[in-house]
Amino acid sequence: MEQRISLVTLGVADLARARSFYERLGWRGQEVEQTVFFQAGGLVVVLWGRDRLAEDAGVTGLGGDGFGGITLAHNVRTREEVDAVLAVAADAGATITRPARETFYGGYAGCFADPDGHVWEIAHNPGFTLAPDGTITVPDFGSS
Amino acid sequence: MEQRISLVTLGVADLARARSFYERLGWRGQEVEQTVFFQAGGLVVVLWGRDRLAEDAGVTGLGGDGFGGITLAHNVRTREEVDAVLAVAADAGATITRPARETFYGGYAGCFADPDGHVWEIAHNPGFTLAPDGTITVPDFGSS
Repeated sequence: MEQRISLVTLGVADLARARSFYERLGWRGQEVEQTVFFQAGGLVVVLWGRDRLAEDAGVTGLGGDGFGGITLAHNVRTREEVDAVLAVAADAGATITRPARETFYGGYAGCFADPDGHVWEIAHNPGFTLAPDGTITVPDFGSS
Repeated sequence: MEQRISLVTLGVADLARARSFYERLGWRGQEVEQTVFFQAGGLVVVLWGRDRLAEDAGVTGLGGDGFGGITLAHNVRTREEVDAVLAVAADAGATITRPARETFYGGYAGCFADPDGHVWEIAHNPGFTLAPDGTITVPDFGSS
């Protein structure tokens, strides 16, 4: 697993309120299918419904301190890498919260929780360009 | 506020266990004063005691869904910028969870929670080089 984060997703209760807040801080993003993407340097900050995020990550009902509403994503270049990273994580003591599978956006991804419950999605997403240095770029969705 | 994240801090119950987990994923970092820093592309991933993180961010007892154990940091180039970003955030509806003040590491920083409780630290830290493009670099602490 390369040493980098591709996306930080903030689970929010009200997408319009959350987007408006970040816009008032000066941020500009694109909204696609009730998801807001902000290019933030070499990574992407995403706003998404908290309930959908928890369900997507398979963490509903995860014990311990509870789901804090933030997930991290690490994008890789092939499907095989998704499987490989999840296997290494499981072997290192992670809990696989969602086994790798096809995603609604045409990719392939799975999620694990680290020993403190922090959730990582390991994803192959052909729609998001991953540069050789690991930086990731939001595509132009043609939306605002 | 520029559109970028400088640090992602994961609050952990057992620093050695957490560090060992990320090392088994192939990550390499430096430990300084019970804090582990991993250079992760243009940002830094930090492991720090969850209780200390919550206390430092001023979020102990924050309502809503509770503190999820992750904070985001946005580093700026001057102390004045810290005050300015916190003022904009407060004006946009953020809750200031820790007013700006001198920090133990010789910097100046304050924290806010966004409308969903996600915590951001806005920091001026002279010890961490902030490049013109906003990428941040962990200094060589001479530790391992």
